[in-house]
Amino acid sequence: MLERMVSSDGPRTAAMLVIGNELLTGKVGEANLPVLARSLRGLGILLRRVVMVLDDVETIAREVRALSAAHDWLFTSGGVGPTHDDVTIEGVARAFGVDVVASREMTAMLEAHYKERLTEGHLRMARIPRGATLETTAEIRWPTILIRNTWVMPGVPEVFLMKIPVIEAKVGRREPFVSYAVYTRMDEGDLKPLLDGVVAAFPGVEVGSYPKWSDPAYRTKLTFDGRDDRLVLRARDAFVATLPPGEPQRVD
Amino acid sequence: MLERMVSSDGPRTAAMLVIGNELLTGKVGEANLPVLARSLRGLGILLRRVVMVLDDVETIAREVRALSAAHDWLFTSGGVGPTHDDVTIEGVARAFGVDVVASREMTAMLEAHYKERLTEGHLRMARIPRGATLETTAEIRWPTILIRNTWVMPGVPEVFLMKIPVIEAKVGRREPFVSYAVYTRMDEGDLKPLLDGVVAAFPGVEVGSYPKWSDPAYRTKLTFDGRDDRLVLRARDAFVATLPPGEPQRVD
Repeated sequence: MLERMVSSDGPRTAAMLVIGNELLTGKVGEANLPVLARSLRGLGILLRRVVMVLDDVETIAREVRALSAAHDWLFTSGGVGPTHDDVTIEGVARAFGVDVVASREMTAMLEAHYKERLTEGHLRMARIPRGATLETTAEIRWPTILIRNTWVMPGVPEVFLMKIPVIEAKVGRREPFVSYAVYTRMDEGDLKPLLDGVVAAFPGVEVGSYPKWSDPAYRTKLTFDGRDDRLVLRARDAFVATLPPGEPQRVD
Repeated sequence: MLERMVSSDGPRTAAMLVIGNELLTGKVGEANLPVLARSLRGLGILLRRVVMVLDDVETIAREVRALSAAHDWLFTSGGVGPTHDDVTIEGVARAFGVDVVASREMTAMLEAHYKERLTEGHLRMARIPRGATLETTAEIRWPTILIRNTWVMPGVPEVFLMKIPVIEAKVGRREPFVSYAVYTRMDEGDLKPLLDGVVAAFPGVEVGSYPKWSDPAYRTKLTFDGRDDRLVLRARDAFVATLPPGEPQRVD
């Protein structure tokens, strides 16, 4: 089904598994995807696929198995708290055929934090899949769980965001993706032949076209993306040169 | 892999396929999922799975095939404009083994709208998978594409939202999901035994627990969901009765 894409010159690939009934019922908006996506672009990693599922151990296990096998990195988001609906640790462990154990390091940290207020509930936050490593940086001491190529991230956006530097330190930066944009008042129907021209002339550049309905300043945003900065800029400028007088409205 | 869940008393199920490089690169935030999710809850349909992929015909075809077979309804979002990166119509057609044809009805509407400004580019918006029906209501005249159990929806949030009533009219309302909430200053670790109690006593009610980091008014939000309104209310009230003095902060 999905081929693992690892090659020397293609970008590294990633997938994200988002877990939580609250997202699939529309009670809460998903906020971690844009944060992860932008971070991965800067690292030169192509995020190819996001899957969102309910709080169900077997579903999570099946997805983790498939997504981690098909990508260089997998990031899960959500389901790592202490309550009955937090089943991600169990799902990830099942995906890799290991059991769930209490991390001595995290248990000690929880004991130090909660002191005499510590409950069995709090201690559930020390559970990890056997064989996972606990990733930290000098600044971010509370560990992030990594097992094989799978990062187990919390769903709470403030905490998810805090852990991004840990990922960036471990995963490492290679040639990042760059992105430029052109804004015009033309509609997509009129732009199509011009876009077809630049797409044909620059196969190494990814060209996107996004109509905007509610902005008086422009009608369509064109994006030019890739990992070869000079080539992407040449594609953008070649496109701009084909626009009629009075266009574009703006170039980024 | 995925079992089709259709039974007389279980809820109808749905999946969503979100298409667009701009979402997986973090340039644009996804805005249609919460709109669809809330609408489906009101119709009594369980949204079980969301998949987000890049603008790639073969990937879209594979996902549409799998998701439409495993759920009662599938909703795609994005990739239906006239430019080179709009490949959803092609992907959906390939999924169902049909070709792409120009809809006479949509062609006529585009001709009437653009008049002498009409271009080949505009006419691409009349392309549909062969065998698709064009769904409308008295109020919403621009058609929404439906093929078998798959709705092909636009990605632009303003237009996606406009089309929701067409879905609601066609899909029909059954016993809706209801949701109640309780807000408390307790943390999840302390709440765990109380939550385990209500989860065990009310197997028909789905109980969720969501920590909030930045709200001074409460620390954890508990949700009680299901399709049996009286049972869900009983579960919520049974839980509230187990809280210590001074709690809850609020009940919805």
